[in-house]
Amino acid sequence: MISKLDLERAWSNTRPFVRNTPFTFSEYLSERWECEVFLKHEQKQGIGAFKIRGASNFLAHLSSKERERGLVTHSSGNHAQAVAFMARLSGIKAHIVMPKNSNSKKIENANKWGANIYLCEPSFEARLAMANELQAETGAFMIPPFDHEWIIEGQATVAMEMIRDQRLDYIIAPLGGGGLLSGSAFASKYFSPSTKVIGAEPELAKDGYDGFIKGVRVDTYVPNTVADGLRTLVGEIPFEIIKHEVSDIWLASESRIIPWMYKIWEEEKTIIEPSCAVPFAAIDANRDHINGKRIGIIITGGNVDLSGLPPYSTEGL
Amino acid sequence: MISKLDLERAWSNTRPFVRNTPFTFSEYLSERWECEVFLKHEQKQGIGAFKIRGASNFLAHLSSKERERGLVTHSSGNHAQAVAFMARLSGIKAHIVMPKNSNSKKIENANKWGANIYLCEPSFEARLAMANELQAETGAFMIPPFDHEWIIEGQATVAMEMIRDQRLDYIIAPLGGGGLLSGSAFASKYFSPSTKVIGAEPELAKDGYDGFIKGVRVDTYVPNTVADGLRTLVGEIPFEIIKHEVSDIWLASESRIIPWMYKIWEEEKTIIEPSCAVPFAAIDANRDHINGKRIGIIITGGNVDLSGLPPYSTEGL
Repeated sequence: MISKLDLERAWSNTRPFVRNTPFTFSEYLSERWECEVFLKHEQKQGIGAFKIRGASNFLAHLSSKERERGLVTHSSGNHAQAVAFMARLSGIKAHIVMPKNSNSKKIENANKWGANIYLCEPSFEARLAMANELQAETGAFMIPPFDHEWIIEGQATVAMEMIRDQRLDYIIAPLGGGGLLSGSAFASKYFSPSTKVIGAEPELAKDGYDGFIKGVRVDTYVPNTVADGLRTLVGEIPFEIIKHEVSDIWLASESRIIPWMYKIWEEEKTIIEPSCAVPFAAIDANRDHINGKRIGIIITGGNVDLSGLPPYSTEGL
Repeated sequence: MISKLDLERAWSNTRPFVRNTPFTFSEYLSERWECEVFLKHEQKQGIGAFKIRGASNFLAHLSSKERERGLVTHSSGNHAQAVAFMARLSGIKAHIVMPKNSNSKKIENANKWGANIYLCEPSFEARLAMANELQAETGAFMIPPFDHEWIIEGQATVAMEMIRDQRLDYIIAPLGGGGLLSGSAFASKYFSPSTKVIGAEPELAKDGYDGFIKGVRVDTYVPNTVADGLRTLVGEIPFEIIKHEVSDIWLASESRIIPWMYKIWEEEKTIIEPSCAVPFAAIDANRDHINGKRIGIIITGGNVDLSGLPPYSTEGL
């Protein structure tokens, strides 16, 4: 069980490595949804995504002896960059398993920070198997992408910053492995209990939604969405938290994800990745719930492969 | 001659309509150029560009009787949007001449705010001729895109905000019609005389550069650059100011403009239009001058037509 003190410790652990990113009012969305919308710009972190928060908190918990063994992890992209970056800062080795179908820009960035990259088949089992193998081989410390309290506590600092900045009725975050969403739920529980936390998931990666409805984690599902950061199952620890602490999970129609990505590019002049478009599409389909409310949306990252953009469309919006 | 009081008046005139946009430190550029680089994000104005400043200052100078006649102007895009927006706010008519080859998104936006749009041949003579004709026909008030003191004073408020925020050795702005650059020069002259102001021009629209070297305005030149916002000659009033008050004009190689646009998208996660990439390309070619200095770059706008993007490339950077 994550305590208030754990979150306060994560706050101090992450401060040296994390930017308190801008949290800005959106005129376009506020007008469209008839409420007050604020956007948390995690794409403005140095690595272009919020994942640096969990990784830096995790590292703070390791002794220098443990760190020296190096780090091993598996990730579809942004956690890989975070681990590569933190390993570089700490002068240690990072071994990172990435699915072959990861966004090439994310692979390139993880490479840029000197990590050893290992490409694997795009399934969760393949990722985990290869990471376990590497750990056995190198003796490196496993730093999981989301299924660990220290990661969840680190990701909670996004919502902690939002809550310090604004009174919010809702915090809405995308749901992939569940680190960010479960962290946000604890941040609200301890620091702003009246704030409801909602997850947003693509309809083609709705293991979290299905599990939330049934009350039992879904462990066989093949996510297949354009939102590359969310092609993963919800982890066991995050799922238990989400089940109890999250108010609802809303689905994004797959056909609306890319249109919403481009809409936000146009209206906010800011680059967001497809995964970040999921909350916008999900909220748009559930806008009746937020009428007149104050809502904070987490933009999780902006690491887009500009050389392979999907065709432009804002159809249906 | 524009006085310090004129700028102070422009400051108050524009406050109700203008956002004091973020002015942020760029780690990427600071490291690349070995200096301290700050970016002024005018793409975050409501109309997606700085032009709202000149237009709102201009309108503040008109009597209500003069305003009622409506407004007429010619513009390749961002000024058109500013005039359309201000006319809408003021409940008056706007007649706007735009070259046929304007960015379609800018035409669409000007239309969205209810202006009457008239497309013309893409030459400065054609723009001016049609605008003059419309003025004679409608009796509307001409609000020029740059060649007027009130416009220049309004645009000066960008640099005024920058100077209030940070001590700067250089302010670098793109040069098209010259409203922004000449305004910036006055802002520095009156409020931070040690700050040098530099213009950046595409090599295929270098009438400003040629005139600056010769000391005489170039009035026959056909600009032909991918930077659609800069396809215009420097105006007469801006030219006289630039000649005396601007420290230098640097050229951007045409082949570097689109690569720099995408580089900034990637590194800063922010959408800038091709015209805004011109200062980055020009500075990169002149980086020896700014070593160790504190420089502020004006990002003028982010109104890009995402449906017709040029092929991705960061070649040569």
